[in-house]
Amino acid sequence: MKWWGWGYEDTEFRPSNHPGFWPYAKSVLDIHSDDFTTRDWNLDSIELPESCADQPFLAKLRACLASTQITDHPKERVIHSYGKGFRDLFRLRHGIATGAPDLIIYPESERDVCLTLCAAAERDVVLIPFGGGSNIAGCLERMDARRMCVSLDMRRMRRVLAVDRRSCTAHIEAGVFGPDVEEQLRAYGMTLGHFPDSFLHSTLGGWIATRSAGMQSDKYGKIEDMVIAVHMVTPEGLLETRVVPKSSNGIDVNHLCIGSEGTLGVITEAIMRVHAVPESREVRGYLFPEFDGGIEAMFQCVRQECMPAMVRLNDPDKTALSLAFRPRPSGFTKIAGSLFKTYLRAKGFAQPRTCLMLIAFEGSPRNVSPRLQQAEAIYRKCGAVGLGAGAGKSFESTKYDFPHIRDFLLDRNVTADVSETATVWSNITTLYKDTTSVLRAEISKSGVRPFVGCHISHSYPSGASLYFTFGFRQQLGHAMDQYLQVKRAVQQSFIDHAATLSHHHAVGTEHLPWLAADISPVGLLAVAAIKQGLDPANIMNPGRLLPSARPLEDWLTLASPLRAHWNQTKEHQPK
Amino acid sequence: MKWWGWGYEDTEFRPSNHPGFWPYAKSVLDIHSDDFTTRDWNLDSIELPESCADQPFLAKLRACLASTQITDHPKERVIHSYGKGFRDLFRLRHGIATGAPDLIIYPESERDVCLTLCAAAERDVVLIPFGGGSNIAGCLERMDARRMCVSLDMRRMRRVLAVDRRSCTAHIEAGVFGPDVEEQLRAYGMTLGHFPDSFLHSTLGGWIATRSAGMQSDKYGKIEDMVIAVHMVTPEGLLETRVVPKSSNGIDVNHLCIGSEGTLGVITEAIMRVHAVPESREVRGYLFPEFDGGIEAMFQCVRQECMPAMVRLNDPDKTALSLAFRPRPSGFTKIAGSLFKTYLRAKGFAQPRTCLMLIAFEGSPRNVSPRLQQAEAIYRKCGAVGLGAGAGKSFESTKYDFPHIRDFLLDRNVTADVSETATVWSNITTLYKDTTSVLRAEISKSGVRPFVGCHISHSYPSGASLYFTFGFRQQLGHAMDQYLQVKRAVQQSFIDHAATLSHHHAVGTEHLPWLAADISPVGLLAVAAIKQGLDPANIMNPGRLLPSARPLEDWLTLASPLRAHWNQTKEHQPK
Repeated sequence: MKWWGWGYEDTEFRPSNHPGFWPYAKSVLDIHSDDFTTRDWNLDSIELPESCADQPFLAKLRACLASTQITDHPKERVIHSYGKGFRDLFRLRHGIATGAPDLIIYPESERDVCLTLCAAAERDVVLIPFGGGSNIAGCLERMDARRMCVSLDMRRMRRVLAVDRRSCTAHIEAGVFGPDVEEQLRAYGMTLGHFPDSFLHSTLGGWIATRSAGMQSDKYGKIEDMVIAVHMVTPEGLLETRVVPKSSNGIDVNHLCIGSEGTLGVITEAIMRVHAVPESREVRGYLFPEFDGGIEAMFQCVRQECMPAMVRLNDPDKTALSLAFRPRPSGFTKIAGSLFKTYLRAKGFAQPRTCLMLIAFEGSPRNVSPRLQQAEAIYRKCGAVGLGAGAGKSFESTKYDFPHIRDFLLDRNVTADVSETATVWSNITTLYKDTTSVLRAEISKSGVRPFVGCHISHSYPSGASLYFTFGFRQQLGHAMDQYLQVKRAVQQSFIDHAATLSHHHAVGTEHLPWLAADISPVGLLAVAAIKQGLDPANIMNPGRLLPSARPLEDWLTLASPLRAHWNQTKEHQPK
Repeated sequence: MKWWGWGYEDTEFRPSNHPGFWPYAKSVLDIHSDDFTTRDWNLDSIELPESCADQPFLAKLRACLASTQITDHPKERVIHSYGKGFRDLFRLRHGIATGAPDLIIYPESERDVCLTLCAAAERDVVLIPFGGGSNIAGCLERMDARRMCVSLDMRRMRRVLAVDRRSCTAHIEAGVFGPDVEEQLRAYGMTLGHFPDSFLHSTLGGWIATRSAGMQSDKYGKIEDMVIAVHMVTPEGLLETRVVPKSSNGIDVNHLCIGSEGTLGVITEAIMRVHAVPESREVRGYLFPEFDGGIEAMFQCVRQECMPAMVRLNDPDKTALSLAFRPRPSGFTKIAGSLFKTYLRAKGFAQPRTCLMLIAFEGSPRNVSPRLQQAEAIYRKCGAVGLGAGAGKSFESTKYDFPHIRDFLLDRNVTADVSETATVWSNITTLYKDTTSVLRAEISKSGVRPFVGCHISHSYPSGASLYFTFGFRQQLGHAMDQYLQVKRAVQQSFIDHAATLSHHHAVGTEHLPWLAADISPVGLLAVAAIKQGLDPANIMNPGRLLPSARPLEDWLTLASPLRAHWNQTKEHQPK
């Protein structure tokens, strides 16, 4: 992955492939110039924290690990300093890497992890488990400059150790990336069925530690629904659960590992539910004349038990963004598209209210076909027009590309970010309307025009997830504070509206101030107790899951190095 | 419920309604006489522990609760002394109620619970939450005679507080019994869908605290899958979670309450997933020529996504027991039955191997009908013969009666009990065969003939639950030790075979010696840490979930008062 943005080094958003996007963004965000700073940052100018090396710890490590498993190379330190949140990337672009660890270790076995934890506990060294580094909630940043800090990069623990085909379970090392685990499982005719937006750049252990959700969660569940058993190496020893489908063995300790965000130990292996690769897969697009109709359609599919494996319903603004993001159309598609537009207008679809929904069904044709028919009948009843499999194909071909936009926009002094939550069906419309208003109002306060879009996905019997995307021109010299005001407003709106702080992005540092409100102070006390029991010396990813006494103040000061920087140097400015 | 057995005082097993049962049991268990002691126990002869009253605690309680909410009546103390495990009932039948609390409190609100916990924490008084008292794993017995002990009987907190029909959630007080919650939900057209064998005599709070499973768990999930949010009053305050379908808010603290078995606090309310009352329900019976064919049929239904809401597949011995348990047939049924037998013989079904399977599908006819057809095609392929809806009706009419048999057998000096577990599909046959052998061998050691039957139910993508029923003549004067040898053998077999200590009966005292093996010592450390954090004074149901240093020895000595009793008095003997 690039150190300064999303994705592989050779991949980025190319406006020529999406000719509608930048004109759309300019018009929506009230931008009148194409003249921006060029990218002038480089690795050498990054300010790394002074290395803090504990010699006895290093000696111990060198005695048990190979030299190829240990590095303090500046580039690796930069890559391991943050995840990919706005706050992370913005700081890196300004040469600030206060979150960088002193050392990176690449364990190759559970034994390596155990040895590292032992050595760290003995020498009071901080360990931060690192999967793909794609987290956007601030789970990976070093919080304490005084203690030596080591990033445990799990990528070398990437094997599928065993597959039980009859039971549809797979025993997998936690450092494996999405494409790799799917490729290994494919050899058994199996799939994990977990495809988060970060799929290319995230790992099994990261998914489990953050309670990730994949696009097909409606069929396969969130990651917590897929974990059958887990190995987590803690400073107190190996927590290991049994490979059984369900149990009544008291408190389910699997659920202490899931969502632990690196604070209790290192998830090294997991036994996961897997599935036969589906024989057929149908991806389709639909347009709804109004957002409410789309919501009702999703809801009815849940109630009538014909939920697709994936549903993603965009509100009008997110629809406009998605359409602007479409790849360059061919001549024929252009003509067909303009004919279709005429047809839509005749049917009463008006652009500012139209909503795009994408769905996927998968499984055996015997199961897929009647459910797809049933779902389509519901969609039609709710006013939808089918876009056919073409829209589905277009979505499939670009589904992991969307996060690249942010880098393109950051280059153009535009802040873009996302916040997501979940709520019950009866609360979706209120939460949607109010949070959209809050976001628009908060962004407007800084005198710029807001973009706020939302999509609904991950539907459940009791509710669904709302995913807000927002963007705005930066107030130069105050971009971080401007961002924090907006981020704070949207999170507060979730909590004020009885929703949760995040549906699948984790708590990290970004959402920590709202954790006590979300799980109640006594819930927090319980989390603190587990931490105290398994990691009494607080060596595992300190500063997460347990807010300080002044959580919001601390949250705001996470940006303070940037303010100092602004006072000393000149920010990127339009030429 | 009766104090000395299962069920309402006016309900019991009547051999005249099941004329085949006792002759079958006699033949299987090698019993040659109908001459047994009559029931000569009575409440007055029960030996209650000396009452231990903390006056300041009592004064505080009397100040905040009504006098009708507090009792130390001997009968109530006896009723609240145990659950309904074999060990519990056997001791009561011998006049031993060492597990009895000093006092029973009936909270009527969350406030009452909070006040009681405050007062108890202040005065070091032990509290044991009590739902229906139907637990058979030993969750309710007082373990410490030195501290005052109070049973918190939750039955008055029985209201459905609110139903969100759109979201299909219901906010319910935890003390409500099965039939009561279903009746209240029925007014909204809703059902919880949770029907454990103990349904008539157990409560929502008890289900959550023990990770219960209902008969229809294949469709509605285990209770842990139904909990959306929970209120648990702990000595450190109220733990309260949000009503959201899913979240990524760190460690899921709902799962600290679920399965906590009264050790962390009192579950007072829960927000549960509910369902529209299904329009149609189809209950059917099938006979399989062999157990393996039945297992394969269950398995294929899971893989082909046509799982019924309920499946219960009996092995040959459990099939014979079930057939012997049938209500007295009418003349016509008799003739039809004998014709059917002839037909089965012609088809190659041989009685000693034949297996009965009961299934139920429920939902909209649109969804039920194709899946039932699909399932039936699978059953036929696996060699099954349909018994039609008649067998289903017969099952439905007696489904909650089975536990009554134990009292009837205890009256006849026969020990009868159950142990259940869960494992992955690939391990089911081995676990089944080996555990059946272990049970038979262990029972035979005491020189009596064993009955061992098993049914498989609660199927999941990765496996299913195995439920063993066993019975044997008592070795008079040593019946408890004889029982403990057998119980210990079956639990050890589960653990030796990579299965879990219980699928839905909880840990309690009965399964505590195997908990460390099940969740690993570090898992246990985590549980201890939560306990330390939320109940530092150890007032909540002490002695559960945290085994002593010598768990098995302590487990065995739980029977010691009985040994003393045997030395002093004469046991029930055949006349």
